[in-house]
Amino acid sequence: MPRVTDPAAPRIALVGATGVVGTTLLQLIEERGFRYRDLHLVASARSAGREVAVEGRSYQVQDLDGFDFSGIDVAFFSAGARVSTTFVPKAVAQGALVIDNTSAFRMDPDTPLVVPQVNAHELDTRPASGIIANPNCSTIPLVRLLKPVQERWGIRQAVVSTYQAASGAGYSGIEELRAGARAVLDDPDSTGVTGTFSPSLAFDLIPRIDRLLEDGFTFEEQKMLQESRKILALPHLDVTTTCVRVPVVNSHSEAAWIECHNPVDRTELVQLLAQQQEVTVHDLTTPGAFPTPRTAGDPNHVHVGRVRVAAHNPRGFWMWIVADNVRIGAALNALQIAEALTERGVL
Amino acid sequence: MPRVTDPAAPRIALVGATGVVGTTLLQLIEERGFRYRDLHLVASARSAGREVAVEGRSYQVQDLDGFDFSGIDVAFFSAGARVSTTFVPKAVAQGALVIDNTSAFRMDPDTPLVVPQVNAHELDTRPASGIIANPNCSTIPLVRLLKPVQERWGIRQAVVSTYQAASGAGYSGIEELRAGARAVLDDPDSTGVTGTFSPSLAFDLIPRIDRLLEDGFTFEEQKMLQESRKILALPHLDVTTTCVRVPVVNSHSEAAWIECHNPVDRTELVQLLAQQQEVTVHDLTTPGAFPTPRTAGDPNHVHVGRVRVAAHNPRGFWMWIVADNVRIGAALNALQIAEALTERGVL
Repeated sequence: MPRVTDPAAPRIALVGATGVVGTTLLQLIEERGFRYRDLHLVASARSAGREVAVEGRSYQVQDLDGFDFSGIDVAFFSAGARVSTTFVPKAVAQGALVIDNTSAFRMDPDTPLVVPQVNAHELDTRPASGIIANPNCSTIPLVRLLKPVQERWGIRQAVVSTYQAASGAGYSGIEELRAGARAVLDDPDSTGVTGTFSPSLAFDLIPRIDRLLEDGFTFEEQKMLQESRKILALPHLDVTTTCVRVPVVNSHSEAAWIECHNPVDRTELVQLLAQQQEVTVHDLTTPGAFPTPRTAGDPNHVHVGRVRVAAHNPRGFWMWIVADNVRIGAALNALQIAEALTERGVL
Repeated sequence: MPRVTDPAAPRIALVGATGVVGTTLLQLIEERGFRYRDLHLVASARSAGREVAVEGRSYQVQDLDGFDFSGIDVAFFSAGARVSTTFVPKAVAQGALVIDNTSAFRMDPDTPLVVPQVNAHELDTRPASGIIANPNCSTIPLVRLLKPVQERWGIRQAVVSTYQAASGAGYSGIEELRAGARAVLDDPDSTGVTGTFSPSLAFDLIPRIDRLLEDGFTFEEQKMLQESRKILALPHLDVTTTCVRVPVVNSHSEAAWIECHNPVDRTELVQLLAQQQEVTVHDLTTPGAFPTPRTAGDPNHVHVGRVRVAAHNPRGFWMWIVADNVRIGAALNALQIAEALTERGVL
């Protein structure tokens, strides 16, 4: 495996290497042949010392508390916003360029918020803050589809309801959903299992993700508005959402109603969406066909179906979006940022 | 139990008596002390002959094919649209007033479509067709909340995404969800169990309910538009929906974005919703509190939470609605129609 220690490639560190996003990032590094000179796996003291195999080599997970980022070219952070708030400034001070998966720096004006298929031009130079932020998992697939619609028809507003999977809360979310589902199947009156989620997600829906803000929206819902505006560079874009956790293991879905300034032609819309990079439109040839979290197919694509224009309002249309939240919504987007930086010679 | 054979009360027949709606209707008749002179349980040949206990008496289920509706005052139909299409005209011809739970006659101009909390005045006289239609399960809770909003602020449009439970597809839907979930828990790569749903609903979402129409909407989505207009007597009301089946056993949920003609005050809105008959607003005192299908509480109430007005658009607000689709969305509404008819002396 010659690519493992490419002397021209960056030295990388993964913080949160044992979590669901970190683990997937390692898989994607292998799958996509992302080159590196050396690789450091970093995590909290709880996971430090664990051995993790990557491309046939074994790496010992290092403790974040004592980790020195000097000599690291790029550090991926996916260990939660609190960890990033504390350790990203240290990594930057020690010279690393940080690709941060958390919400900690997304709205910082000196930090670009990037979806490579949408605003890769922001990666042309090293950012002032030393940080590139990876957007929220539900925001990424949405903006990838909003961008061509905005350019073609202009968006008056987007009204989006999400159907978000347990994996958005990490391995503990997945395990809790499974354990809760077993408990409820064994006893229909069981309250399931709580901890990561409350109430239990088993056979239930939780219409609140992340903390509640003063205006009654959740932080998750606010992120979708603010981040969409920043990524698309449309400071007045009107995106309003309800974010709901559903008893699905992996892949977020969204029912998106988009109202444009001009009437939309369905055939043209479907063709436009299908032309986007790494997007599969399920009803391109069979109107009404749809992706689902478990059956959508290629986890590295954004999947779209049920594209339809309202008869009573030809400026409005619906689409049903499914995207692997761990890949598209986190690890893959982060790696694609690194790939774009490498192509541009910034890394 | 003196009420069982009240000589002043109607003679009733339940068609589809062994299904999930029929069974719940029998429970509600007991719970609410609905009076009847005599009771006939009717079903397809497959269920005929079964013994069902109601208020301590045993009834033998009769075969619909040979059933004579002469002498029946009111017949409840909840055995699917095909059965209603064939047998409701026969029941009407034999003199019964029919309360039909299916979509078969809802849009018939001679048939009132009634949610007693909204348009009970349509029950003042016996309808020309001899039929009163019970609306779609997702439409009922929605229109109960839209009515006061329309009267106070005027509705420009409602954009609704549904999260509909397996019980909307009857006992077979519930059993299939449970069996599929067991299969997937035992083997995460299992495709689950299909038949009622396709793909399997276990840990998945199915963004298509009922058949697909030419315009790309499903019949379920069309029902929510057309029925809302008819019930509210607002022929131009703009309601657009995406209807999604979710892996929940019972109770439908809806994320509803309502845009009004005038700015909405959250405090006044919450108070207005809380004043509605049999509605519980979960965030009346704790903003952000929410109902869920498994934890909402009183199954005979419509539950609302997450009521919030958008800062960037004070004419628009969201609400999260949970209602027992078998009770609120079918059996209870049907029985409340019968109760209203009795109060008015029409029955």
